[in-house]
Amino acid sequence: MHNQEELILLGHGSGGRLSHDLIKNIMVSAFANPLLAELHDGARFSIGGTKLAFTTDSYVVKPRFFPGGDIGKLAVCGTVNDLAMCGARPFYLSAGFILEEGLPIAELKKIVESMRAAAQDAGVAIVTGDTKVVERGAVDGIYINTAGIGAILPQADITASRVKPGQVVIVSGYLGDHAIAVMSERHGLTLPAQIISDCAPLNGLIQELLTEVPAISMLRDPTRGGLATTLNEIAADAGVGIVLEESSLPVRPEVAAVCELLGFEPLYLANEGKVVVFVEREYSEKVLKIMYRHQVSSTARIIGTVSDKAAGMVALKTTVGGLRLLDMLSGEQLPRIC
Amino acid sequence: MHNQEELILLGHGSGGRLSHDLIKNIMVSAFANPLLAELHDGARFSIGGTKLAFTTDSYVVKPRFFPGGDIGKLAVCGTVNDLAMCGARPFYLSAGFILEEGLPIAELKKIVESMRAAAQDAGVAIVTGDTKVVERGAVDGIYINTAGIGAILPQADITASRVKPGQVVIVSGYLGDHAIAVMSERHGLTLPAQIISDCAPLNGLIQELLTEVPAISMLRDPTRGGLATTLNEIAADAGVGIVLEESSLPVRPEVAAVCELLGFEPLYLANEGKVVVFVEREYSEKVLKIMYRHQVSSTARIIGTVSDKAAGMVALKTTVGGLRLLDMLSGEQLPRIC
Repeated sequence: MHNQEELILLGHGSGGRLSHDLIKNIMVSAFANPLLAELHDGARFSIGGTKLAFTTDSYVVKPRFFPGGDIGKLAVCGTVNDLAMCGARPFYLSAGFILEEGLPIAELKKIVESMRAAAQDAGVAIVTGDTKVVERGAVDGIYINTAGIGAILPQADITASRVKPGQVVIVSGYLGDHAIAVMSERHGLTLPAQIISDCAPLNGLIQELLTEVPAISMLRDPTRGGLATTLNEIAADAGVGIVLEESSLPVRPEVAAVCELLGFEPLYLANEGKVVVFVEREYSEKVLKIMYRHQVSSTARIIGTVSDKAAGMVALKTTVGGLRLLDMLSGEQLPRIC
Repeated sequence: MHNQEELILLGHGSGGRLSHDLIKNIMVSAFANPLLAELHDGARFSIGGTKLAFTTDSYVVKPRFFPGGDIGKLAVCGTVNDLAMCGARPFYLSAGFILEEGLPIAELKKIVESMRAAAQDAGVAIVTGDTKVVERGAVDGIYINTAGIGAILPQADITASRVKPGQVVIVSGYLGDHAIAVMSERHGLTLPAQIISDCAPLNGLIQELLTEVPAISMLRDPTRGGLATTLNEIAADAGVGIVLEESSLPVRPEVAAVCELLGFEPLYLANEGKVVVFVEREYSEKVLKIMYRHQVSSTARIIGTVSDKAAGMVALKTTVGGLRLLDMLSGEQLPRIC
């Protein structure tokens, strides 16, 4: 019998277990270097004594326009946020466009205008770029890659090894809005209340947090794979357990309703304007106070704690008192969400 | 009458006139900032007193494997070379993959291995990345974006404003090999002699050139749009004329033969391992001597001079003594060449 040829599956792009394994076994093992092996939201290094962060993401969201944003806004905010999660102040972005022959130029203009507005909002400049055009059918309208450079804030020391038992886990707001907004638009669902993507730049918030609370040990934006996958990665990297309180998890009732109807799990849904913060309990009030001052995090709350038990695992304390293990996302929940 | 809706054409990705106008009118005008407006191969700026270069390119070459390289090698060399053209020593690259569902993983591995080898050859590290998967038909197998960061060499002052009448134009070797190699593979042409892409990292050569000959005023790699388009951009930016000697232009006889057969013009064909150097005539021997020591530039030669006449234009002195104006590439010669 021949070996069955292994093929790329949609799940390899989910941000969950399959993505993780593909990247580890193929990219990280080939490009072998300590910066990449960190598997953080970006790489951190020094050039000429300046501490920098560097990150990239490609955006293939479908549809290109959705409630609360479009592919252009997403492409800027996503990369700005990844730099912020490295403890960096974002400065410069690149923009690489892959356009499909036949794309209306008016639509490109609209997307570029969204990028301009988001860059202005985040205080970054798009300074270099590239435009490729492929024949009809060889790309779905437009894909955008952005890469970004930022300067690590002197106060920042964001690393999983600083996550310790006793620290609390704070999330900046409602979970799953982005995924449900995109999904509803894609499938033309009529929902009782319109759900709007949370897509937003978080660098202003993060800069204030890190300046005022250097005790913050870890930051991460729960995008593809959702909160559960992000926390699993951190639990594994830090060698700690994480226990979430189900009753504390912020999910809008309308998002919960859609999830129940369609069988989605909000903890695995992508967010594009949320941050998870780890900090000693004594600083949690200070963190929340700062968060309440920013619109992007006005509904922040403590959702769990770091434990010295069950290292590498994430557990959910359910409202009925049980304890449920939350694994990384396996397979694919919603393709092309960002 | 309604306005006809303007659509993206393949020619908008050619690297020629249409690309130039699209980028200028849509991207540069929206993202308005002086770094982007330079329209160099990359942006140059300082962070914390360190002078950096930053660049990006997406790669959509078809087919993915061709004589002399593949999309992975191209994605590393292209970005390394763009940094070198900024007068920078390349340090770090990002890699963003967009994969089609169903792509054989063995093929991805092969491409990633090419990237590893090319990065090692160029002395750079791939330190951050992203992987997206889209459903069958939404991308043509694999597209790769790379962005890169380098440190500007202290001796380097690469800018069109230093290009002055009397300087000579040197090209590092044969023109058009990459485009013809890809095109032949794409269309299954059987050529009398196999033509191999020139895809190669140039940063070693450039670093030596800039260290030994700081008088070098301008560097550019004539990729999409070819030598003629590159020189038109420089002539316009510098406000000078450029006169090429047709008899000096290095084109392999087998490339010239394919071009004649199919109606291509070698001066508009993409190169992926060539550099054009501008320097005062007194330093040209020194530049050539260094070039001859590197395999990538062992057939370098002087191909023309900078003139104070016909500012902004490029002319070709033909072998029969005439003078022919060379415009930028208009429309599309060979789509998806890189």
